[in-house]
Amino acid sequence: MNYKMMGRFIGKILLVEAVFMVPAMLISLCLREIQACRGFMLSLGVILVIALALLGISRGSRKGFRAREGLVCVGGSWIVMSLLGALPFYLSREIPSYLDALFETVSGFTTTGASILPEVEHLSKGILYWRSFTHWLGGMGVLVFVLAIGSTGGKNTGFTMHILRAESPGPKVGKLVPKMKKTAEILYLMYILLTILNIVFLLIGRMPLFDAVCTAFGTAGTGGFGIKNDSIAGYSPYIQNVCTVFMLLFGVNFSCYYMLLIRQVGSVLRDEELRLYLGVVAGSILLICYNLRGVYATVEELVRHVAFQVASIVTTTGFATTDFDQWPGFSKAILLGLMVIGASAGSTGGGFKCARVLLILKSLRRNVRQILSPQKVQVVRINGRMVEESVLENTNAYLSAYVIILFFSFIVVSIDRFSLMTNFTAVLSCFNNIGPGLEAVGPVCNYGAFSGLSKLVLIADMLAGRLEIFPILILFSRSTWLRH
Amino acid sequence: MNYKMMGRFIGKILLVEAVFMVPAMLISLCLREIQACRGFMLSLGVILVIALALLGISRGSRKGFRAREGLVCVGGSWIVMSLLGALPFYLSREIPSYLDALFETVSGFTTTGASILPEVEHLSKGILYWRSFTHWLGGMGVLVFVLAIGSTGGKNTGFTMHILRAESPGPKVGKLVPKMKKTAEILYLMYILLTILNIVFLLIGRMPLFDAVCTAFGTAGTGGFGIKNDSIAGYSPYIQNVCTVFMLLFGVNFSCYYMLLIRQVGSVLRDEELRLYLGVVAGSILLICYNLRGVYATVEELVRHVAFQVASIVTTTGFATTDFDQWPGFSKAILLGLMVIGASAGSTGGGFKCARVLLILKSLRRNVRQILSPQKVQVVRINGRMVEESVLENTNAYLSAYVIILFFSFIVVSIDRFSLMTNFTAVLSCFNNIGPGLEAVGPVCNYGAFSGLSKLVLIADMLAGRLEIFPILILFSRSTWLRH
Repeated sequence: MNYKMMGRFIGKILLVEAVFMVPAMLISLCLREIQACRGFMLSLGVILVIALALLGISRGSRKGFRAREGLVCVGGSWIVMSLLGALPFYLSREIPSYLDALFETVSGFTTTGASILPEVEHLSKGILYWRSFTHWLGGMGVLVFVLAIGSTGGKNTGFTMHILRAESPGPKVGKLVPKMKKTAEILYLMYILLTILNIVFLLIGRMPLFDAVCTAFGTAGTGGFGIKNDSIAGYSPYIQNVCTVFMLLFGVNFSCYYMLLIRQVGSVLRDEELRLYLGVVAGSILLICYNLRGVYATVEELVRHVAFQVASIVTTTGFATTDFDQWPGFSKAILLGLMVIGASAGSTGGGFKCARVLLILKSLRRNVRQILSPQKVQVVRINGRMVEESVLENTNAYLSAYVIILFFSFIVVSIDRFSLMTNFTAVLSCFNNIGPGLEAVGPVCNYGAFSGLSKLVLIADMLAGRLEIFPILILFSRSTWLRH
Repeated sequence: MNYKMMGRFIGKILLVEAVFMVPAMLISLCLREIQACRGFMLSLGVILVIALALLGISRGSRKGFRAREGLVCVGGSWIVMSLLGALPFYLSREIPSYLDALFETVSGFTTTGASILPEVEHLSKGILYWRSFTHWLGGMGVLVFVLAIGSTGGKNTGFTMHILRAESPGPKVGKLVPKMKKTAEILYLMYILLTILNIVFLLIGRMPLFDAVCTAFGTAGTGGFGIKNDSIAGYSPYIQNVCTVFMLLFGVNFSCYYMLLIRQVGSVLRDEELRLYLGVVAGSILLICYNLRGVYATVEELVRHVAFQVASIVTTTGFATTDFDQWPGFSKAILLGLMVIGASAGSTGGGFKCARVLLILKSLRRNVRQILSPQKVQVVRINGRMVEESVLENTNAYLSAYVIILFFSFIVVSIDRFSLMTNFTAVLSCFNNIGPGLEAVGPVCNYGAFSGLSKLVLIADMLAGRLEIFPILILFSRSTWLRH
């Protein structure tokens, strides 16, 4: 293990985290939220000391870097970043238990949006801002950010590739341009632009600036932390519709936007993942609207609520405008399905990802054809291009790991005496980085009542879900830590 | 498609079915159950006419037979056999709806044991016998039986191999001896011996002969149809323990028994699947006993009930001695896990199968190691032997198909307005050929209240589960029916 280089990298990440904590501190300073401000200052101090210590210790590290070290680095960074990002909540005493603060922070960075807080409106503005900002930072990935601003472009392309691959959602990372650093830059630029656009549209609907910024952070990262107890339900229909549209936009593979920028409209329209994603959204809205006919007063209300909830769940954001736990079983079953499918690869959304669903379906069809005609060699194509066997193998391995983790987490969380549906959807929701589940973790409830053990399991699930399992799985593998 | 040869084969299967219906008819004749007897006679007539017609039409069929035809043949035989096997229930008017009768028959042949009947004690003995016997016939497979007694040994080894492979549970069929016909014979001999042994042990516990035979049929096929409304709960502790032991025995890969017969005790003890299976059973019993401490009056009662329920679920039998739907969430979560894992490959049990779990786990470990050391070639071994890549690929495809079928069935069944847990466990239970689920399909409930559509979906699930998906999936594939 190249611990020095890992230390240097984590040190850099912490510096970035500290820098991003400053605006939150300034907000609480301006609004004279003394406890919160003190919390931020103390946290900043601790983070800076640790960051500088790490950078100091790891001077003169050798350059060689292997795949495993990239993965360990990603998993490690996220854990350290979460452990320290939880400090403001804890030190400001707004979340008295450190474990709860950690849960909230991991939920933020992983863009899950599951909260242990029964109500959020009593939190100070500074803390609310930091809580929502963790979504924005976690959405595109803080490591990708470091790549974008950093200088590691030239020498360590292997390393940066590992980082980008591990932190970006999806079965395969398409480099937009040959240089990784440039790719990271373009991604962040598009991300910032879309976020600003989101804020502008919200402001047009007369949403207060603070609300608009926080809501846009939650939308852009497909996170779901709101600043109101009733999430988005209290805002105007216009604002709800803006949220629906932007949630869906942030669930699209960002490479589609890049294609649009360089005017390759045709290849965006033919993109199979995009078609599947939009098809799933449209189909779910139609089916649920049919199932819920007569439940809401007007058709406009029906479509608005259904479209919002479908967009919120499929993009794994987790905002709500209505308590979908009260919907009939068929609608809830579809939502459960959407929880698993998730958004597109290369978006800020979580879940299994549409691209993987496509790969699994095509690989299964290939298998059936292989049985029917054993002598013919069958290949899987996506967007006309042949998919490498190793990608298919990895996707299948991902499915296995996904099922196994879901299974064991469910068993452990079941030790708490909640209903099976509560336990199952809590795990499903955290693992897919959504936020709300059903029954006792439904959209009007929270995760506060779970035991410490369950919270730890759910924290691990959120991290595993956001980092797509392997960087976390590898931290628990004995052979990672053996000398080679 | 070689329709003639398929016709001949299905004709033979129907003749066997007719022959096996005779004892049931005789029972109702002796007991003067007039309606039932009339039902059996009419059914026999219809089956014989169809069978002879099929055999007549398909004279002089050419011999060539392809993989797809073997699979279509297996799927087709099971469907025809079920459609006609349902006639006695329907024609005797003991199950007035034909769809319900079909559900009950498919549930029987697939050894699921899910019933649409709210109570079974009013059924005539002849019908009860036939109901339980379908389990026994479906357990080892009627096609395997035809192979065992048939003359298709020499010329069509490709065909017989396809049949045996499609009908026997597990990722890979191990031929016990080089000749397929001989393998089928040995399997059936061991099956008959174990069933007789089971009957003897039940008789020793003073169970009436009729009860003992029917219960042994349900145990041997790992089916679960009982002849009492309270399943096995009303029998003595001794009989319950006998059932526990025999359920577990029938969940073991039959090749282990063959190994014992030819005195290869060592290789049985080292068998990794057997170890996993027994480990899962022992672990589950311990965890549930701990979870339920204090619920039952004595430790004997606690262990007896827990061991019985664990054995019943893991082997996918579905008998019950207590209403486990009343157990706490942790115990139920473990039972849900056991439902998925299922029994060993090459046993009469259903589920995903321990062998596949082993393959998935090892293949995942391989994948993690591959990430850690990309340059090393990693192989998967089971019982010391290298597993072919094609077997791993098929296992992964099986997992995909398993998840996809589960998912879509759940969505469709959710149209009925039951709870999500009811719908989910109904699908899970039927697909894994278990019988009882939780809540409205719990061990003291039944499937009668589901809509026609849901029953059809569950019928398809039971067949897909028993035949391990692909023979049924292929019936729905367009390319199967295209001319090549």
